[in-house]
Order: sequence, then C-alpha cells, then structure tokens
Amino acid sequence: MKPIIIRTIAELRQEISAYRRRSSYDQKVGFVPTMGYLHDGHASLLRKSVSDNGLTVLSIFVNPIQFGPGEDLDKYPRDEERDIRVATEAGTDIVFLPSVQEMYPQSRVTTVTVAEVTDSLCGASRPGHFDGVATVVAKLFNIVQPDRAYFGMKDAQQVAVVTRMVQDLNLPVEIVPCPILREKDGLALSSRNVYLGAEERTQALQLSKSLSQVEEWIMEGMTATQIIARLKAEIEFFPLADIDYVDILTYPELTPPNGELPLKEIDVSLLVAVAVRYGKTRLIDNKLLNPSEVGADLCFAK
Amino acid sequence: MKPIIIRTIAELRQEISAYRRRSSYDQKVGFVPTMGYLHDGHASLLRKSVSDNGLTVLSIFVNPIQFGPGEDLDKYPRDEERDIRVATEAGTDIVFLPSVQEMYPQSRVTTVTVAEVTDSLCGASRPGHFDGVATVVAKLFNIVQPDRAYFGMKDAQQVAVVTRMVQDLNLPVEIVPCPILREKDGLALSSRNVYLGAEERTQALQLSKSLSQVEEWIMEGMTATQIIARLKAEIEFFPLADIDYVDILTYPELTPPNGELPLKEIDVSLLVAVAVRYGKTRLIDNKLLNPSEVGADLCFAK
Repeated sequence: MKPIIIRTIAELRQEISAYRRRSSYDQKVGFVPTMGYLHDGHASLLRKSVSDNGLTVLSIFVNPIQFGPGEDLDKYPRDEERDIRVATEAGTDIVFLPSVQEMYPQSRVTTVTVAEVTDSLCGASRPGHFDGVATVVAKLFNIVQPDRAYFGMKDAQQVAVVTRMVQDLNLPVEIVPCPILREKDGLALSSRNVYLGAEERTQALQLSKSLSQVEEWIMEGMTATQIIARLKAEIEFFPLADIDYVDILTYPELTPPNGELPLKEIDVSLLVAVAVRYGKTRLIDNKLLNPSEVGADLCFAK
Repeated sequence: MKPIIIRTIAELRQEISAYRRRSSYDQKVGFVPTMGYLHDGHASLLRKSVSDNGLTVLSIFVNPIQFGPGEDLDKYPRDEERDIRVATEAGTDIVFLPSVQEMYPQSRVTTVTVAEVTDSLCGASRPGHFDGVATVVAKLFNIVQPDRAYFGMKDAQQVAVVTRMVQDLNLPVEIVPCPILREKDGLALSSRNVYLGAEERTQALQLSKSLSQVEEWIMEGMTATQIIARLKAEIEFFPLADIDYVDILTYPELTPPNGELPLKEIDVSLLVAVAVRYGKTRLIDNKLLNPSEVGADLCFAK
C-alpha cells in the first residue's frame, strides 16, 4: 500500500493523533528521520520499524542548520519519487516531507546543544553540526511524538548525541540503534556515495577493509595509539585519501581510552571511527566493539 | 480531595498515562510548573488549570541550574507541607516533587538555549538564567506531556522565552499566560517577598505605584526614554531601592521601541519591566500594555 504523503506539521499531527485514538495502547508509533536519497540502510531502518510498530513514519528533510558554510547543503542529492518508492516497498505508513519554511517559519532563536559527546570526531570537524542535528531531531520528535526512533550506527556519534539528548531532556522516545549496511565489497551505504568517481570509490574500500582488521590487531595486543597509526597508514597508502580523523573513543561517552594500554585489557565499549575525503566527498565509517568481547558476536541493540 | 504526591518521573508518567487511557479525548492535562513556596498567584494558576482541564499537575522543583553563582539557591524558601495544602485547596490532582538527583541524574550536557528574547532584562542581569529555565521547562514538558501549561505574567520574560521555545521546538503544549496577582497595597505576589524587612516592603510599593501611572504618562504623550527616566527617578526617590533595570520593550519580541516617539503613536504591545533590589531581595514587576489601546481593558490571554 502506498504511504500517505504529508507536507505540513498540522496534518501530520492530525493523522498520528487519529491513529493513536483508533488504536490500542500497545500499537506503537515508529519513526525514521532521514535527509532522503534513501538507500538500503534507510530501508533497513524502515523495515525494522514496520516490524516493531503499528505505524511507521518516515521524515525526509534536508536540514539546513546542520550544514556548515561551504558544506554540501545545496548539492545534497534529492530524489523524492524514488524515496517514496523505497518507503512504499519497506511498508512505511506516512512520509513526512516538510519544506524549510514549514520547519523554520521564523528566525531560529532556540537551539538544543549537547556538550562533551560532540567535542570529538565529526563534532570537532563540523562546528555547529550537532547543534543543528539535536535541534531538528528534538523538533521532529515533538512533531511526530513517536514511541521509538530508528537511527543507523554509521552515524555513531549522532546516535550518541541523540541518545544523550533524549536522556537529558526526558524525551519520551526509545532510541533504537541499527547496524551499518554495506555494499558487497564493504563500502558503507551512504547517500553521498553517488558523488564518488570510480577510482575514488575503489580507494575508499580501504576504510571498511582496515576497520574489519581492528579486532585482530586488538587480539595481537595493540594499543589505541598503535591502531590509530596503523589505520592512518593503511588509508593514506591510497593517494586520493585525505584523512579528516581516525580515532578510537569509548562508546557512548566518546572519551579517549588509555592510549598506551593494550586494548584487549580494557573492558569498555569502543568506537573506532574514521572520516576521510576522497576528492570532494567526505565519507565516514566506524566499528563498534567491546575489546574484552572481541571474537564474540557484536550486538548493536541497546 | 488530597492530590497524589509523586516523587519519581516513572511513577508520574504511569499516573498520567493511566489518566489518558481512561479519559476521553477532550479531557486535557493542565500543568503548573513552580519552584514551590506557593502564594495566591500560584493558586490562581492552579485554579485556572483545574477549571480548564480534566487533570491538573503541579510541579515543585527548585531548579538549581537557573540560579547563578551567588544567587539565592540555598536559601530559596521551601515549605512542602504548606504547598500541598495550597495545592489541595486549589483542586490539584497530582503534585510532582522530584529531587535534584531525579531531575539531573548525570552531569548535564544538554542545554536548551533561547537567543534574542533573553538578551535584555533578567536575561542580561542573570547570565545563564534562561538557559536553566528553558532546559528545565523542556524537561518538565517532556515528563508531564501536558496539553496546556500555565505561567504567571509576573515573569513576563519567562513567558516570552517559554512561548518562543515551544514554537521553535514544536512542543505540543499550549502556553497560557495568566495575570499578575497583587497584595491589596499593590505589591506583586512573589515567594521572595518573605525576605523583605518592613521598611524595604514599604519602599517597594513604589514599583506597582509607578507602573500603574505609565498609561497616563503615555496618554500625556511621553516617549519611552522619558518614561524610563521618570520611573527610575520615582523608584530611586526611596533610598533603599537599588535599581537593576527599568526598561520598555516590545512584547513578546523584547526589542526596544523607538525611544524618541511618543508611545501613544506606536501600535505594538509593550512591556514595562523593572527589577529592583531592596536590601538583599531582588524584586521584579511589570505592566504589559498596547499603547494604542491604553484605556481599554487589557487581556493577557493568547
């Protein structure tokens, strides 16, 4: 069945509130906020929401306030028709497609800021980015009022930021982190992958290749400092790679572990995260692991 | 009937959600957030909520993060027993009395900031104050999820800040501003009035006396600059008065009107606001008016 397409906040609230009124208490509302140009990673979030909830709402909104000056807001890829097709196939009930005017009708004076977890990684290289993310996610949560919201772990720091915001502001929503989806050759799915030239794409495969080796390196007794250096060397071996960051941090606090201890001696969840430019395209990828459990199955669920 | 006393977020959510499930759609939840030490101003908010809604929730929480260093957090007056009596008499259904640990269980990293409307008045004299207010009100709104929330216009800037936050973050709650309540002699009701010595209290009566003259002065053709000067002179005539600010701003934007035009020529709502220390006690008071409607009945409703 085709989803209902809604472009205004008032209509969306009416639709969801009508659903709540006609449904029993245990029929929940699931929400997948996206910037559109959906790939199978997004589709996997939608499918998970459809299987968990009675109503699934997808939002598609390229949020201007999370882009910095000189970033790719204007050329961020869009394809509404294809997005609706993907949403339909995944079983989505409502697609919310607000305009910028609908989301920001007046000058924005209210900002939600999440400190500390935004100091590192993308927060450090994209100043103000996570203020924009936290603010729009808070808005969307207040508009949709979902019981559960689904986020991909490719943006692991975003999941950490949103989770902390939900705790600190007592937002009545459960955050469900979902695993990274990859191409057959390992490249993490991203709307930005369409920008990659053929040679850039080939060289970018090193990201997932190197990340997949980290568990072995930990078992061999390497420290965080050593692993970071090795990741950098492997990625930079390819001349088109321009590293933004390569880092290992505790998760979800995002603080540095002791860099001089063999990681296998540290019993805490760790995020190995990379951001690398290939030409004009900035890619991110990561691996979440608990060093003391390396070798065991990893689970991204809460 | 005595209200239910609740001290944890989980219990409060359970109680309100049970009410929602057993009630019809038009039975609303009203919410009165306070810092306790209730006076008849608070009671009037509670009575209004009780008359408008099926369920009225009062919160009493002296919010540490809205007090600056050197402010009166530690000696802020508290009297739980009397507060519960006032709440009972007003017909309150639930009194929410969370501990600081319950509201801030971990280091606070998330802040809601409302810019512009916080630049003037109390926002200028109490840096960070309105970040603390906006953050705790957002938390309380997310915890209680009320349909309507009631605020006294004595804290007119607070009403402007909360209203703007609700708009910007799409919080699903209606803000209901309610008129200032006064003693028979004109002193605006405030929990801080208990601090005033007899002579301080007498001299503080000039605040409401001067504010009540502003309409006349406007009809006489005075400008904002002239009225501010006259208010200051009248208040400072009393030697215990130590003026923090006296200002006239548009409402709810809180921007300065043209100070050189006679105010009766300006067709915009204006807030005349004062903050004055008498000894160690800082009092605020204000008058909201539309100069083009001076003489007509004022209405604080939305």
